Amino acid sequence: MGGDHGPAVTIPASLDCLKNNPNLKLILVGDEVVLKDHLSQALVDFADRLSIRHASQCVGMEESPSKALKNKKDSSMRVAINLVKSGEADACVSAGNTGALMATARFVLKMIPGIDRPAIISTIPSIFGHTHVLDLGGNVDCTAEHLFQFAVMGSELVKAVENIDNPTVGLLNIGEEEVKGNEQVKAAAKLLENSSLNYIGYVEGDSLTAGNVKVDLIVADGFVGNVALKSIEGAAKMIGTVLKEAFNKNIFTRLSGLLIYPVIRSFKQRIDPRMYNGASFLGLNGLVIKSHGGADALAFKTAVQLAEIEVSKGVIRKIGEQVETILSKRESL
Amino acid sequence: MGGDHGPAVTIPASLDCLKNNPNLKLILVGDEVVLKDHLSQALVDFADRLSIRHASQCVGMEESPSKALKNKKDSSMRVAINLVKSGEADACVSAGNTGALMATARFVLKMIPGIDRPAIISTIPSIFGHTHVLDLGGNVDCTAEHLFQFAVMGSELVKAVENIDNPTVGLLNIGEEEVKGNEQVKAAAKLLENSSLNYIGYVEGDSLTAGNVKVDLIVADGFVGNVALKSIEGAAKMIGTVLKEAFNKNIFTRLSGLLIYPVIRSFKQRIDPRMYNGASFLGLNGLVIKSHGGADALAFKTAVQLAEIEVSKGVIRKIGEQVETILSKRESL
Repeated sequence: MGGDHGPAVTIPASLDCLKNNPNLKLILVGDEVVLKDHLSQALVDFADRLSIRHASQCVGMEESPSKALKNKKDSSMRVAINLVKSGEADACVSAGNTGALMATARFVLKMIPGIDRPAIISTIPSIFGHTHVLDLGGNVDCTAEHLFQFAVMGSELVKAVENIDNPTVGLLNIGEEEVKGNEQVKAAAKLLENSSLNYIGYVEGDSLTAGNVKVDLIVADGFVGNVALKSIEGAAKMIGTVLKEAFNKNIFTRLSGLLIYPVIRSFKQRIDPRMYNGASFLGLNGLVIKSHGGADALAFKTAVQLAEIEVSKGVIRKIGEQVETILSKRESL
Repeated sequence: MGGDHGPAVTIPASLDCLKNNPNLKLILVGDEVVLKDHLSQALVDFADRLSIRHASQCVGMEESPSKALKNKKDSSMRVAINLVKSGEADACVSAGNTGALMATARFVLKMIPGIDRPAIISTIPSIFGHTHVLDLGGNVDCTAEHLFQFAVMGSELVKAVENIDNPTVGLLNIGEEEVKGNEQVKAAAKLLENSSLNYIGYVEGDSLTAGNVKVDLIVADGFVGNVALKSIEGAAKMIGTVLKEAFNKNIFTRLSGLLIYPVIRSFKQRIDPRMYNGASFLGLNGLVIKSHGGADALAFKTAVQLAEIEVSKGVIRKIGEQVETILSKRESL
């Protein structure tokens, strides 16, 4: 039911995913009447892989997380997360209210022992392909220990999803020199240097998209990570706008724009934000993926596919095991 | 002497500025022998407007600010800032080591009474033209009071430079809702709401370049501001790289690239970082402008022109007066 467009987007995207992956099963959670109305034929076509779970409430996009948690015990996101808790579902994907989704996921699924706060991780296109980055807004005022926990969890996700043994981890800072940065970042660097992670040091904001070397995972506190992500989104939008204006200048430039349509198309595909949609909540006993609220069907499909990949790779289980290993090592010191 | 290219860039840029502005006088500070070698004819052509001031030392780009301050008392940047202190120069422009320049400027010029820390302000291209933003890296771990001081100083600069009465001021945050953000940002919002500044509320990272409304000035702590700026630079570089790759795909795309050369040129001009070069240090008793270390002659010229504008508009004096007014209001409460 969530997102700016609701079932008009989530349902076509879901059906597309079912078509593409014969092993996928989806439970659509929300107002039964609305969903059935959209689904009549699909419920027959995918009889064994598609079902509906009724939820009588819906969390508004502007509702406060605490109110949603208190007053919306039968909301579509609550019921969907309950399915993950009970084991009926392997993951929950939602385009709904981020704060409410996070609060509900935390309340229902609980934290992995040893992790203090859930973090939000996603990917950003880069000249090397893409970069994983966390935290993207779940946590402000992080301690060094929180940043370290983010790095541990993020590394496990990158290992599993990218099929690499030893992902490189950078810490977002305002310079690459050791003396730079705030106290939390400097202390986090010490923790990372003494860990088994493949920590490569401080990286600056440009490393998210176009640094000198490929960095698999970049760790930041949620305030900084969120500002960086939004700044990149804004820059891309600004450049797109200026480019459009340049092509719309006169009849000649407009015609030349038509000529290079194939180039612009391949360029757009490469950095299309819809191909990067889907942010995973890490640190919970269960997989919850947040789609952008404004996602269209293609973007929402990307988020569902991300859930498929993370489930098949056992990301949540691997994170739990890794955190346990690190904790027991600390205790034995 | 500063920057990655030294006099090879700063001298041609300086001569170009002298040609363009018949009222401009420049004192080039550095190794007399090197400078004279580059300048022979120009010293005749601009006899009454161009002079050399010898400095026997030079601060390296990687030198620590404290060492530069202690051991390089006759460095080109120190001598140049001394000229501002003595009133012989109205402004100092340098492409040298940022940290050393800031430390030296603070030591020599001292802070304006009532301002705790100098801040770095610059402009970023946006869909509305450009946005002024501070702090860009001088200060990490800012208090609400620091953020407020940045807003007061930045507003005066924008008023003077843009010729507008009441510039809009936004506070960089991770959401536009009142409940979001860290403690410092929330407390700074209260100070700004109760001030005479034209505070419009929280803005997100995309507002730097492509928000819903034009914001004249965006205020952030130096860590967040620096990450945002570098993230935008990286995004622009990444998009440029991907666009180039798309045009280099095959012979057809390469030819079509030639056809749209005028479009690409006008597009590049609009967001050319060289046209946005030059960051002003605010909060000091004197004007110091930092050029990007990698600046070419065009970029360095932009930084010198920024100094010309700020001097002609009396930015430093106006900031001092405004800070004094606000302080006396507080004392009378």
